[in-house]
Amino acid sequence: MNVRKVFLTENEIPRKWYNILADIKMNPPLDSNGKPIKLEDLAPVFPMNLIEQEVSTRRWIDIPEDVLKVLCIWRPSPLVRALSLEKALGTPARIYFKNESVSPPGSHKPNTAVPQAYYNKVFGIKRMTTETGAGQWGSALSFACCQFGIECKVFMVRVSFDQKPYRKSMMEAWGGKCIASPSTETKAGRDALAKNPDTPGSLGIAISEAIEAAVSDKTGKSRYSLGSVLNHVMLHQTIIGLEAKKQLKKIGEYPDIIIGCAGGGSNFAGLAFPFVYDKINGREIDIYPVEPAACPTLTRSPFVYDYGDTAGYTPLLPMYSLGHEFVPPPLHAGGLRYHGMAPTVSQLVIEGMIEPKAVTQLASYEAGVLLARTEGIIPAPETNHALACVVDQARKAKEEGKEKVILFSWSGHGLLDLGAYDRYFSGNLKDYALSEEEILKSEKVFESYPKPKRLKSR
Amino acid sequence: MNVRKVFLTENEIPRKWYNILADIKMNPPLDSNGKPIKLEDLAPVFPMNLIEQEVSTRRWIDIPEDVLKVLCIWRPSPLVRALSLEKALGTPARIYFKNESVSPPGSHKPNTAVPQAYYNKVFGIKRMTTETGAGQWGSALSFACCQFGIECKVFMVRVSFDQKPYRKSMMEAWGGKCIASPSTETKAGRDALAKNPDTPGSLGIAISEAIEAAVSDKTGKSRYSLGSVLNHVMLHQTIIGLEAKKQLKKIGEYPDIIIGCAGGGSNFAGLAFPFVYDKINGREIDIYPVEPAACPTLTRSPFVYDYGDTAGYTPLLPMYSLGHEFVPPPLHAGGLRYHGMAPTVSQLVIEGMIEPKAVTQLASYEAGVLLARTEGIIPAPETNHALACVVDQARKAKEEGKEKVILFSWSGHGLLDLGAYDRYFSGNLKDYALSEEEILKSEKVFESYPKPKRLKSR
Repeated sequence: MNVRKVFLTENEIPRKWYNILADIKMNPPLDSNGKPIKLEDLAPVFPMNLIEQEVSTRRWIDIPEDVLKVLCIWRPSPLVRALSLEKALGTPARIYFKNESVSPPGSHKPNTAVPQAYYNKVFGIKRMTTETGAGQWGSALSFACCQFGIECKVFMVRVSFDQKPYRKSMMEAWGGKCIASPSTETKAGRDALAKNPDTPGSLGIAISEAIEAAVSDKTGKSRYSLGSVLNHVMLHQTIIGLEAKKQLKKIGEYPDIIIGCAGGGSNFAGLAFPFVYDKINGREIDIYPVEPAACPTLTRSPFVYDYGDTAGYTPLLPMYSLGHEFVPPPLHAGGLRYHGMAPTVSQLVIEGMIEPKAVTQLASYEAGVLLARTEGIIPAPETNHALACVVDQARKAKEEGKEKVILFSWSGHGLLDLGAYDRYFSGNLKDYALSEEEILKSEKVFESYPKPKRLKSR
Repeated sequence: MNVRKVFLTENEIPRKWYNILADIKMNPPLDSNGKPIKLEDLAPVFPMNLIEQEVSTRRWIDIPEDVLKVLCIWRPSPLVRALSLEKALGTPARIYFKNESVSPPGSHKPNTAVPQAYYNKVFGIKRMTTETGAGQWGSALSFACCQFGIECKVFMVRVSFDQKPYRKSMMEAWGGKCIASPSTETKAGRDALAKNPDTPGSLGIAISEAIEAAVSDKTGKSRYSLGSVLNHVMLHQTIIGLEAKKQLKKIGEYPDIIIGCAGGGSNFAGLAFPFVYDKINGREIDIYPVEPAACPTLTRSPFVYDYGDTAGYTPLLPMYSLGHEFVPPPLHAGGLRYHGMAPTVSQLVIEGMIEPKAVTQLASYEAGVLLARTEGIIPAPETNHALACVVDQARKAKEEGKEKVILFSWSGHGLLDLGAYDRYFSGNLKDYALSEEEILKSEKVFESYPKPKRLKSR
């Protein structure tokens, strides 16, 4: 019998994260005057221990024991061979995935929520605020805060808040509070509502609200938490790829192709960065971040300095961006509805280390249903984007008659997104096209901003 | 660092199921004239290979290779030490659970759905019908049928169909069809609707509908499938306890106490029967099936011959029963809303091998929230009943200062039951009391039936 799953024991879990900042050059984040930001500028927003981690260039960073203890509620996650998918496609490719859907909130997000809650706890923080798109991140942070006894407040993008009511219930089950964004609780929210009372909301607006809620707490015991984009988030997620490497090694495999969906970039980075390290050191691997065609950050937008949020509370970050005022269409893959992209992921595109792909919503669901009916797990809408690319690559391997080894990240399950599958089956799910005009319009915002350098690390 | 999870590799998965019929005496199932039924009487309902398994008294039965292949999509399931719960309760007890929520449908149900679909496939069956309460069973059979290329039709108890719409979407994601019961598609359904158009439905009625839909298919290629109660279902579920035994052995543990929720009995039996075998052979273990106080089959109803369904299509089974016309109150734990109990589980109560407990709905949610906030996984409403008993036993161990080893079954997750948690948090969830009068009334139905013997196996 072919073995489907490769496990690591808890004793084999990686003890260090991989920090890609040791291996690539980066444009610095800037303040709104175009000057490199100072660490203390970020102190009202994040605890200093996380700020230091954000800028660290040490290649390997120890994972604290108390973080490992909580991660071991579900980690190491299984590496699964997609035997039934291979059979259904008749491909000579061997396809493996890291199943990140096994965490209690159902995605890879707690990989960083847990260390973030831990570092906040150590720093004496009592309350954390954050935003959430599809709800995966907000529930992950609620879960993590619950483990460390910290209060948690989540601003959830309205379109997802309405589409996915059970995400709120999930956050409450772990003691978190969840409100729809834009809300009337913050200036950023009130401004957004004044501009458009019927706005579906966006991650950009929700981030502004969450930052404002944290920094305006007079006790000084609140901090904000971001579920993607930032360096320390990518760092924490590398446990995915580091585990996958160990698991593949156990069965004598190494990937030719790596695929992950990319919204802010953390799921993709988590799987890919440890392999990017190998690529930097001479390995040949094709690495594909996959984004929605309706929010085409890496594939159709420029590399610029832009704010991470709509109100401009964050530093200017060097990244591919559709503009911080861009409100993506109401895709079900809420986790991919982000105007920008992690600076580290952006830099790897600049350097030609990774090749972004875009897929449409309907193509993603077609792949998702195929995977549900072969591998059994019903995928999250975000994951479906990676799956469309996996199916493409597996078919290509068949056409070429090549025994490629494909590794992808199953970022989450879709059990709280079943309404979207309903709409897909009933023909009520649609594709959104983004015109060249819309993209050019969104780019106007950058004209007055500083320009990042197109750095090459080697 | 204390290890939380104990895994088995796929090569260590049990290769045989344990059949308790080898070790206990049973009253035979009877036809409606009070005569022991013949195997061929069941042939229109079940494929003959499963009927033979239903009556087999061989102690160990091989698990077919093609069944193991599909089970390995998620099995062997983790054995988890509930370290955080232990800490929260300050109990000297060591608490372990089998996490059956990791299957794609989210519960233990596919442990029998997969072999049932396999045996039907081998027998040449093209279409399977079934009923479902909370939806766990219907989605499990849809999943299993999808793996073997069999059509699947599910009659879902209306109260759950309305409370848990995503269960239908889940079945459809795997290609199954799901309709609310009572429906107008069957005589049993139409009769139930004529009697009470506003009925919340019941498992008894839904079973009648599903059997009727199978046996009335003129092609002869349809069969019915039951997700609990029957001997072969209990047999298939013993993989839970057999795995748990191997896992506990790896860490040098053996349980003093075993706890599982019991509706039809299959989750409880799956964990407990392999340990009942040890108890028969001299081990001291306390074994507790836990049922809802509002549907108190084992704790308050008589041991009788009764039908498994409302219309009386099944044989008369020797079991504890509230009467096949009893419609349980609309508890959220839909999987526990059953008027009867597996004959094997019933017989073990008669013999004093296991001690049933009943808990109220609110007590069960209180325990469920405690577990969600310690162990992280949000439990299914059915699981919550077991959890209430676990918390009681852990507290008792603390009072007595005893290092008891408690093993329980985490039968499923509650991600599609979050609406019930909403109602719990908002104070809108209630307890249902069942008066002595209601129980006596429901028992009248048995007056004219044959009486089972109170057999003692040793």
